[in-house]
Parts: sequence; C-alpha cells; structure tokens
Amino acid sequence: MKKFCILYLFIAAVFSTGFAAQHPGLFLTPAGVKEIKKSQGKYPAFDMSVNEVRKIADNALISEIMVPVPKDGGGGYTHEKHKNNYYEMNACGIMYQLSGKKEYASFVHKMLLKYAELYPTLGQHPAVRSETPGRLFWQALNEAVWLVHTANAYDCVYNFISESDRKLIEKNLFYPIAEFISNGNPENYAVFNKMHNHGTWATASVGMIGYVMGDKNLVDMALYGSNKDGKTGFIRQLDVLFSPDGYFTEGPYYQRYAIWPFMTFAQVIQNQQPELNLFSYRNGILNKAVHTLVQSTYNDEIVYLNDALYKTIKTQEMIYAANIAYKNNPSDFMLLDIARRQDAFFVSDAGLATAKALQNKKAKSFEYKSMVISDGKNGNEGGIAFLRNNNSLLTFKATSHGLSHGHYDKLSLSYFDNGNQIIPDYGAARFLNIEPKSGGNYTKENYTWAMQSIAHNTVTIDEKSHFDAKIKVSSNYHSDIQYSDISNSKAQLISGVDTNAYKGVKLQRTTALIESKSFEFPIIVDIFKVKSDKPAVIDYPFYYRGQLVTTNYESRKNVSEIKPLGTHNGYQHVWLEAEGKTTKPVTCFTWVNGNRFYSINTLTNADSELKFLRSGANDPNNNLRSETAFMLRQPNTANHTFVSVIEPHGLYDLTKEVTIGFRSSVSNLVMLADTESYTAVQVTHVNGISFLLITMNNQFNKDSVRSIVLSGKSITFTGNYYYSEIK
Amino acid sequence: MKKFCILYLFIAAVFSTGFAAQHPGLFLTPAGVKEIKKSQGKYPAFDMSVNEVRKIADNALISEIMVPVPKDGGGGYTHEKHKNNYYEMNACGIMYQLSGKKEYASFVHKMLLKYAELYPTLGQHPAVRSETPGRLFWQALNEAVWLVHTANAYDCVYNFISESDRKLIEKNLFYPIAEFISNGNPENYAVFNKMHNHGTWATASVGMIGYVMGDKNLVDMALYGSNKDGKTGFIRQLDVLFSPDGYFTEGPYYQRYAIWPFMTFAQVIQNQQPELNLFSYRNGILNKAVHTLVQSTYNDEIVYLNDALYKTIKTQEMIYAANIAYKNNPSDFMLLDIARRQDAFFVSDAGLATAKALQNKKAKSFEYKSMVISDGKNGNEGGIAFLRNNNSLLTFKATSHGLSHGHYDKLSLSYFDNGNQIIPDYGAARFLNIEPKSGGNYTKENYTWAMQSIAHNTVTIDEKSHFDAKIKVSSNYHSDIQYSDISNSKAQLISGVDTNAYKGVKLQRTTALIESKSFEFPIIVDIFKVKSDKPAVIDYPFYYRGQLVTTNYESRKNVSEIKPLGTHNGYQHVWLEAEGKTTKPVTCFTWVNGNRFYSINTLTNADSELKFLRSGANDPNNNLRSETAFMLRQPNTANHTFVSVIEPHGLYDLTKEVTIGFRSSVSNLVMLADTESYTAVQVTHVNGISFLLITMNNQFNKDSVRSIVLSGKSITFTGNYYYSEIK
Repeated sequence: MKKFCILYLFIAAVFSTGFAAQHPGLFLTPAGVKEIKKSQGKYPAFDMSVNEVRKIADNALISEIMVPVPKDGGGGYTHEKHKNNYYEMNACGIMYQLSGKKEYASFVHKMLLKYAELYPTLGQHPAVRSETPGRLFWQALNEAVWLVHTANAYDCVYNFISESDRKLIEKNLFYPIAEFISNGNPENYAVFNKMHNHGTWATASVGMIGYVMGDKNLVDMALYGSNKDGKTGFIRQLDVLFSPDGYFTEGPYYQRYAIWPFMTFAQVIQNQQPELNLFSYRNGILNKAVHTLVQSTYNDEIVYLNDALYKTIKTQEMIYAANIAYKNNPSDFMLLDIARRQDAFFVSDAGLATAKALQNKKAKSFEYKSMVISDGKNGNEGGIAFLRNNNSLLTFKATSHGLSHGHYDKLSLSYFDNGNQIIPDYGAARFLNIEPKSGGNYTKENYTWAMQSIAHNTVTIDEKSHFDAKIKVSSNYHSDIQYSDISNSKAQLISGVDTNAYKGVKLQRTTALIESKSFEFPIIVDIFKVKSDKPAVIDYPFYYRGQLVTTNYESRKNVSEIKPLGTHNGYQHVWLEAEGKTTKPVTCFTWVNGNRFYSINTLTNADSELKFLRSGANDPNNNLRSETAFMLRQPNTANHTFVSVIEPHGLYDLTKEVTIGFRSSVSNLVMLADTESYTAVQVTHVNGISFLLITMNNQFNKDSVRSIVLSGKSITFTGNYYYSEIK
Repeated sequence: MKKFCILYLFIAAVFSTGFAAQHPGLFLTPAGVKEIKKSQGKYPAFDMSVNEVRKIADNALISEIMVPVPKDGGGGYTHEKHKNNYYEMNACGIMYQLSGKKEYASFVHKMLLKYAELYPTLGQHPAVRSETPGRLFWQALNEAVWLVHTANAYDCVYNFISESDRKLIEKNLFYPIAEFISNGNPENYAVFNKMHNHGTWATASVGMIGYVMGDKNLVDMALYGSNKDGKTGFIRQLDVLFSPDGYFTEGPYYQRYAIWPFMTFAQVIQNQQPELNLFSYRNGILNKAVHTLVQSTYNDEIVYLNDALYKTIKTQEMIYAANIAYKNNPSDFMLLDIARRQDAFFVSDAGLATAKALQNKKAKSFEYKSMVISDGKNGNEGGIAFLRNNNSLLTFKATSHGLSHGHYDKLSLSYFDNGNQIIPDYGAARFLNIEPKSGGNYTKENYTWAMQSIAHNTVTIDEKSHFDAKIKVSSNYHSDIQYSDISNSKAQLISGVDTNAYKGVKLQRTTALIESKSFEFPIIVDIFKVKSDKPAVIDYPFYYRGQLVTTNYESRKNVSEIKPLGTHNGYQHVWLEAEGKTTKPVTCFTWVNGNRFYSINTLTNADSELKFLRSGANDPNNNLRSETAFMLRQPNTANHTFVSVIEPHGLYDLTKEVTIGFRSSVSNLVMLADTESYTAVQVTHVNGISFLLITMNNQFNKDSVRSIVLSGKSITFTGNYYYSEIK
C-alpha cells in the first residue's frame, strides 16, 4: 500500500507540467498578499506578527550590508552575521510583498548580489568541527537553514530583480549552494539522502530554491532523492521519520525542531504541486505529528524526555506548524486553540487563514488526552505513554534509543501535577547558546550525568547504566509496551518491558493513574518488577521538586560533610545527603510543591536502604542543576518488585494561610501476590476503603478470562488487569 | 500638636451621646445592605466574593454545631474547630443580612448559645505554651481574633435574637470574654495596654463587641486604654506603632498582618463615631500605612525582610485594607488599581464602594516609586529604602531591630529585576501551618540560620553575627540613614551607617541605582566601608538565584566532598562549594536568571578569598532551602572598602533561541580614592565610556559645596555625592 502511494506521487510529479509560474509562490501567493493587505487592522495578533517582521526589515534598511568571509563557529561574529542576514532578507522579502516599498526588495537584491560575489570564492569553512562542514557556516545544516530563508526572500523579490541579475545570482549563488548541499561532498550527499532531520532540512532547502527557480531537477531530487527513485528524499522521510502515531524518535523536544522543515516544505509543495496532496499522505501524518507534539506538552511546555530544554508552544517553529496544519486541515478547529495561545502568526497565507478562522470564533479547546504513542517507522519499536487525568500528567517511556539525543532511561517516568513538575526528568545538561558553557553546546555532563540511568526515574543495576551507556548497543534495541488501557479514567494503565538494557535482566514496569473516590486527586500506583539471573544492587530513585516535609523513618542527614553516592556512571554526580533504614513494611516520604503536598508510599524490607540525593557533585564547571531525589536501594537481590503509590494531597495556601491534609491518606500498601503470572497490590485509604489492582505479568491478551485466588478468595476478570474498590 | 489631637478625640468621645443604635453597624449598615442587594449582578468580582461567603455559610448550615471543650494547640482539632466556628458565624451573619434567610441567623444564634454555655465553665487553656494563654485557644491573641469575627456575626443577627437571649449571651459570653481579653490576668492587661500588634487585636476586639452591645465603657477602654486616659489604647497605638511614613517596625510581612485590626477597627469607629475622623488622624497615617505596604511589594509579592514568607497583595487582610482605605479616601484612585489586581472584595459597605468605583473606571495605576521610609514612632530610628527604576527594585535596610521578628542584618540589601528575585533575602525558616515542621511555627533554624548575619547580603565580622545575635542588645540600637537622594533617576543613592552591630566597628554602606546610557539596564554600585579598631575577618556575601555561568578566576569546586563553612552563628548551615584566589583587581562572576544575565564585578586583592556557598548544612530536619551565594572574604584587615557593580545584561531567550550579551559590559572598576571624607569609584563600560561616583563619608549636608582633587583634576559639587558620565 505504501509502495503504491509513493509510486503514485512519483508518477504524478514526473508528469506534472511545471510550476513556479508565479511569484511569490512559496508561503505567500499573489492572492494571499492581496488579502493580507486588505485585512490590515482586522486581526490584531496577526498585525503584531507583521509588525515584528517589519521591525526586522526596517532595521535592516538602516544597517550596512555586510557579507563577511566565513571564519567563526557557532556564536561567533561571521556565523551570527550570516544568520542575521538571512533573517533580514526573509523579512525584507515579505515586507516588499506586503508594502510594495522598493527599498525592501532592493535590500534583498543587493545582498544577494554580494553573496553571489562571495560564494564562488569559498572553500570549506575554516572552523573545522563538523563531520558535514558547510561553506558559509561551520556545518552544512546551517547552510540549508540559510537557503530555506533566502529562497523565501528570493521568491518575494523575484519579479523585482532584472532577468540578467537573476541569472547571475542563480548561477553564482543558488545553483552552487543547492549543489553543495545535495552533492558537495560524500558527506553532504549522504545527509541529503539520509532518513534524519538534517536530511529534511537539506531536501527542503534544495526543493524550495528549485521551485523558485522553476527547476524541476532540483525539486525532483528534493522530493525523491538524488536518484529520483523515491528511495530517499523528502517524501520517503515522511514514511520513515515519524511513527504511524506521528512520533519523532528523538523525543518531543527534537520533534519540535524537526517539524519546522517538514511543515514548511510541505506547504511549499502544496502550493506548487497540489496534486501531490501531501497533507493527506500516510493518513495525514503531518497533521498527526503536530497533534502528537502538542499532546507532548504540559501547561504549554514541552515535556522533558531525552535531550530537552525549556520550550513552549510559542516557539516560531510551532507557530509555523500550527498555522500550516490548520491551513491544510481547515476543519481541525483545535489547532486554532493552539494559535490563540501562541498569540502570534506565521506571516503567510497559512497564518492569515488561521488568524481569520480564530477571529471567526471557530476555535475548539484542544483536547489533551491520554495517549499511547508508538515509536519506530512501523510503530513496533515500543512507545511513550502520556496518562492524563484532570491536571495530572504521567509520562512513561518505553521507546527505542532516540538516535544521538537518546538517554539510557528505559521505562522511566515523569510526573506533572497542579501546574508544576513534581517528579521531573532532568532533560539535557546544556546551556543553549551560552558561549562560556561549552560553547553553548551539550556539556560533558550531558553524557556523564544527564544521559545516565541514575539521572532518571527508573532502576539502575549494580551502578551501571542501561546498555553500559553505549549508544551503538542501545540503538539495536527498544523497550516494548506489553499492554495499556486508557479507556477508563478510573484506572489508566501502561505496562512496559525491557530485556536488553542489562544482560540476563528483565525489567518490567506497570504504572497506573487511578481515580479513586477515596482520594481527592488522581494517584499513581507503580509496580516495577526486576528479575535478574544473579544477585545485584538495584536502585530505584524518584527525583522530586519541592521541599521535603517528613519521612516516616529516621533519615540521618549527613550534616557536617557530604560525599558523592558513587564514582562513575553518573553516581559521581549526586551527593548523598541522607541515609536511613526502616523496620516498617511501607516507607513514606512527603514533600510540598506549589500549594499541594505529595507523598510516596513504597514497600520496604529490612534490607532496604533509603537515601536522599542531590545532583551537583563532581561538577567543576557548575554545569549541573541542583535536583533532589529519594532513592530506594535493594542490595544483593536477584528478584525484586518495587511497589509505590505517588499521591498528591491537601492544600498549602500561604495566601489564605490554610493548610489541609499534609499527611498522606494511604494507611496501608500491601503486595498480596507477586508471581510470574501476575502481581496484586492493595492500597488502603485512611477512611478504611481499599482498592485492589492486579496486573498480568505475561500472556497478555485483553480478551483472556483470568481466574486468580487471592487470600482464599477467587477473582475472575477479563484482560490484562483488574481494578476494583473494596468496601 | 499630637497631644492636642488625642485630647480632642478624647473629649469628642466622652461627650458623644451614644452609638450602636442600629444593626448592623460594624462593616455593614442597613443602607449598605440595601445597596449590595440592589447591586447583585452588577459587579461580577464582588458577586464572586459574596459567593465565597455564601459557600462557607451554606456549608455551615449542613454541618453539626460543635463547640468542643478546648484542648489542642495550634493546628489541633479543638483549635481548628473554634477557628472554623468564627469563620462560619461571620459568614452566616453576613449572609443573613444579604439574603434575609433566617437559617443563617439561627445558626449564629444557636452557636452563640452553645458558647454562652461553655465559656463560663472554662479556666485557662490546658495547652500551656503561651505567655498570654487564652481560654478557647492556647493564646489570648486567637481569642481576640475570635471575638473580632464573632462581634461582626452578632452585629449582623442582633435584631434576630430575642432580648432575653441577647442578655444571656452578653452576660455569659461577650462580657466575660471582653473582660478576659482586657483584664483577665496581669499578662492580658499588659497586652491590652501595650504598644504592640497583639494589643491592637485586643483593643479592636473589645471595642467592636462594645459597639455592638452599645457599651460605652468597653469602647472607651478600647480607644483610650484601661485607664481611659489615652496613654494606651487603640488611638495611642496609631501614634506609636507606625513611623510617620507609615512603616511598621517588624517589616512588611508583619505590617500586612498588623494592618488587619488597624483598618477594620478604624472602619468600625468611623461608622460608629464618625466625629473621631480617624482616617484623617496623624495626617492620614492609616492610608499612608496601606500605601507603604503596597510599595513594599514587587510583582504583587511582599518583599522579604526579617521573618517573612510568601505573601501577595491578594491576602484577605490586604483586601480589607485596600477596600477600607478606599472607602475612607474616595479620591485615592490608585487603591482601585490594587483592588483590581486583588480581584476580590471585602463583603461590606467598603467592598461595595470599591467595586463600584472600580466598575466606573476610576482606577489609576498604582505608582510604584523609590522611597526612603523612616522607622520608629518619631521617624528617627533609621529606615528602609526601596530604589526602583523600570523593573528593578533594590531594598536597603537600616532600621531598628524589628521586635521579635527582626533579623541581625544591618545594612543588608536585596534585589529584584525582570520579574524575579535576583539577590534574595532568605526571609523566615518556617513552614507555616505544616505541623510536622516544628508544629508549623518558626523552626530552630530560623534563629540559627535565617536571623544570623551570614544569611544576609551584608558583612559579617569574625564569623559573629551583629550584636552577637542578642535581641536584647540589638533592640537598643538602630542603624541610621546618612543621606539619600531619589530625586534623579540617573543616580539614586541611599547611604546607611551602623556603629553598634560590632563594638569598635563602623559599617557604612552607600548603594546607588544608576541609569547610565552605556548600560542597557539600571545597574547597582555598592560601596561598603568597614572600619574596625582591630584586624578582623570580614565576609561580604551576595546570595544569588539562578545558574552560575562563569567566573573570571579559577574557582576550584569541591567536587568529591563538601563541608560547612564554619561551626556557629549560621556558618554551620552553609556548605563551602568552591574556593578561589585571584590576581586580578576586579573579580567578576556571571549567572543567568529568567531570560537575563547578571554579573557582579567586585574589587579584589591578593588577600581576597572567593567562595561559593550553598545553604543546607547541619540541617537534620530539612528545614532549610537550598540557596546559593558568592562570598568575598577579606582576612586580617581592619579597614576595608568593598566596591561592587551588580549588572543585569543581555538576553537569554530559549523560546526564540536568542542569546545576546552574556558577558558583563563592565570593562573596568577602580576605586580612585577612599578617605575618611569620601570614596570615589569609576566604572568603565566596554564602549569606553565611564562614569564617576563620589560619595561623602561624613559631614553630610546636601547644600555643602565640596571640592575634591582626583587624579590631579579638581571636581566641585554640591551635596553628598557626585555622579557624572565621563566621555
């Protein structure tokens, strides 16, 4: 079926009679320009976006045109200058269309002539740091980004420039740069034909300038790969880089970045070759990817998985994505809700269409919902789950590695509630664009800490990270989702397994978001089953944000000296702040975050070691944030099942000076059974009412009828789990 | 003049012919009730406040009336029950007036009868913890708060209750409790006649019930003290408890609490004895106190000085204060801006008047401005300064001790910018109302850490706190403001001195908020001169919030073990994270907070020890927050002048991935002269432009003409300082 699809598109393209007859034709069209002009004053937020562009353009007009010989790496002068140049050309191009003011077009014209003069003189960029070096920039990726913006500028001023100058510019600048990006050297050729987001930038840039110049050859290469056989190229990327659920394997943070060339080039193709009908391709994979990305946010902030920093839905690329998705799916009114919150638009036909529909009150609240999202191009390489209830979000990760940005955190979870990060994922150890911090790039600690297993809310065995933190090994495997059920808000379950992270070890985690009448907020039950072929030290941490309130055991703080927890694999980066033992079967600790309390009740035994940790040890350059964790260690055990309840409770209102329910409402937590086949857990509320949760550990089948005898009582149920309140 | 004032009020009161002829008469009046009823639906935010009250009242109606025998301390069952009871009576009283529904009145009636039954049987509260124990509560203060609320409830249902029941309730409950609060034992008598905010609650409560019962004796005692001579009592408190600038000596956090009985009782008096004209008393001290309190906020959050926790202008007491202040100063339209942001109202005549004026668009933006605010009843016990420019706020403290809530932090400062706390004051080590945290009271660490000098942005000498952290000594003294000038936004200066914190030591700090053309944001120049009669170790820390970016010297992190900085006086509570030395005359460190960078450039010499600290050592019960500091130590020096520039710079925008100006723009910092008489500092921007700041160190006189020779050049200026940009 897919093959047929590609073939169809291929044929449609080859037989298409031509394009780019009119300018502008990428993101703006003559009709669109007319309408934008007419709409001035009608859509204030759109006008503000136009003003932003105008500000950049007007500032460009009063600046000297400088096209320096490339010299510096990222953050340095020539790098930033060339970056700024494409922003300015892009803005001037757009403003020329919207205002008709020739000064804008003239600016682009002049700057293009300067580039046309410089470019033929350039060899490889002197700051050799990249495996795929560029000419204007230290890496070819930036060269492609330059071309994406500049193609748009050229499109906008195309008719302004004389034919002879156009010829000159195309010959000396655009053809050489398109050739360089697609085939400048073996590395660039490989990237252009690679199934990777850098390949997307490469094909998009070459395709866009191809459309503007009316060059079918460039366009076809962009769409179907250097060999024009559809085995590589942009359309093939649409098959491979997203899972059928629209998930990008590097995780939400990089999905946000990848969506940029995907959506923008797709829009260009839609304008130029509407017969390809790209927004319907693969069951509308592009729109699905945008939705999945928005689902990967909490309070508009992208959740932290793998290498991730703070990003919200307000980034430029998400504005492009939402506007273009809406323009091409005009009945998808939930996208307008996103646009409303972004409060800014892509100055283009797509942006105007979105602004207009929003003004016409067509927005529908974006429906954040629980999702289990497959990873892998065929959707069979594990996945992530987002379980939501009310204002709670639990993330559960059982994916493949995630390419170079993946972390060694199989079956890890993170948790948001009441507007706050409660059990955070560390994300990346990076200070983007802050030069003194490792040149703004990933710090050394991103590998020695942020990627290591101990930095995550999952188990670490014998103080070694999953796959020994070797990406080549990790990339061969993926975790699996054993079963899930998000159909009933009373009990939403996700169950994952990993048998490759450690040799001879089976990791199996089943996590449930439970809405019980007894508890005031949704709570989490976490069952983490570790089965090893030999005794080991098993560490099970929960990172927590907030201030520790109390523990139900004596936690001995290291008050006059603290040392790191260990010496390697990330353990050297956490201070051991407190230690304790307990005789209680259930250990409880409570903290406060925002105006709410949180407790974790977890099963313990006489061997259990209870530790409080804080990141920041062995950090000579202050590259780490100070994050705190509670960790349960089971030394010398081959089989162990961790069972925990994570519970928000009470109210801590400093404004009204009201404190309610600072104590956990869990009065008991018992594992009634734990066999190869199933695990049964009973949670009792202080009101005396319990609930029972049974999860199957093998032979998953949602239609199987199970019969289990628990405490002499027989329980029969269908499916992979059983949940019931007990009176 | 003041004496005359009191005498006048006194005579006016004595000859007044009576009051409380009508009910309600405290916060609601028959006319007010009528208008509130009529206004339903007109002022949505006011309606919402009514709904809040209704919710409490309706919830009360369906609950069983319980008036338990007192037993527990704060947070315990009987304590919370009696607290809840007065909230419920208060709400039911108000709702009876607004709805006419007899159930509400009947609830109050019944509960009062129960109290009238219980109260005569009570002796001293069994939980003996307070020096002024109550009967219903562990401390008499709560008894007064109970009476304030209950007096209002009784006022609202007065006409509903039969005369015989009123007599019973008054005889068995209100007279005994008023007698107990004002004269129940020598301690209560003392508090009732004390110049202290507990005295304000005591007099307000007795006065309010006096008005409701029409008892002139109680009212006169409340207004003029037990002896009715005006030497004590509520009106005398108005003379003594606020400085002429409306500052309450315990600091803004407790000013917020004290304002409650002041404003509410004043409103009651205004309704009952308008001839006393209390809102004009002492040049309108009450309104001034409200304004000063609002000026003590940043982004609606009360700044942290002395014992302080998170509080905003949205607290109930600040709603009362703003509404009552507006009702009695109806041309003060800036108060409406506060009400607008509070978005809630005091359900009373005052609240309605405010809601109405707000709806009529009379609000005027509250003008936050630089202020130098005197401390002490006569305004001669030092003071605090708030220097503002744009979105920056610098606080500077040179006050008296601040009673039991004062900290040992003479001449300390704190700094807010761009919406964030940049250089924070620690505030209190307390978890209000969180029972497992020292019963919700101040923790031990409040004294061992939060009050100690090293916890603050000021100097500590020989690792000993100011006044050896002895309140009895500290309370005898106050710092002084030597001079200030906030008239020119280019250079706002505050200069303070303290000669008592350490024997034989003069501390002198001059801090300027400078708006220079060269710097993109206002910067701070801090000159801290220490003169000791013997060599000492002088510590000068800056607490900072955010992530350290870089230092211009080698800061050796303690990577594999950290220990506390010292052993006592708060030093035991900070970990020593890093140490360094420098050969540079100017030491710089840069951090990032929010989307902005901050640098401190400070003068150093070969002796200087540079340390990074983190609070949290010797904290067995996790009572401390993790806060970070940079500290400059000068060992073995008798005279030293610290000079620093605190500079916000650049942009760190993760959404747009834009990083600008992460480097400090200070290229040089030189102390050109430092004599007994003056100190001169030159700050040079990387653009080559400098400014010169000269501050006088003695003989302060804003009209004196000074002539100073600096680097062979003569400079003449008038006043206490000189500021000029140098080309």
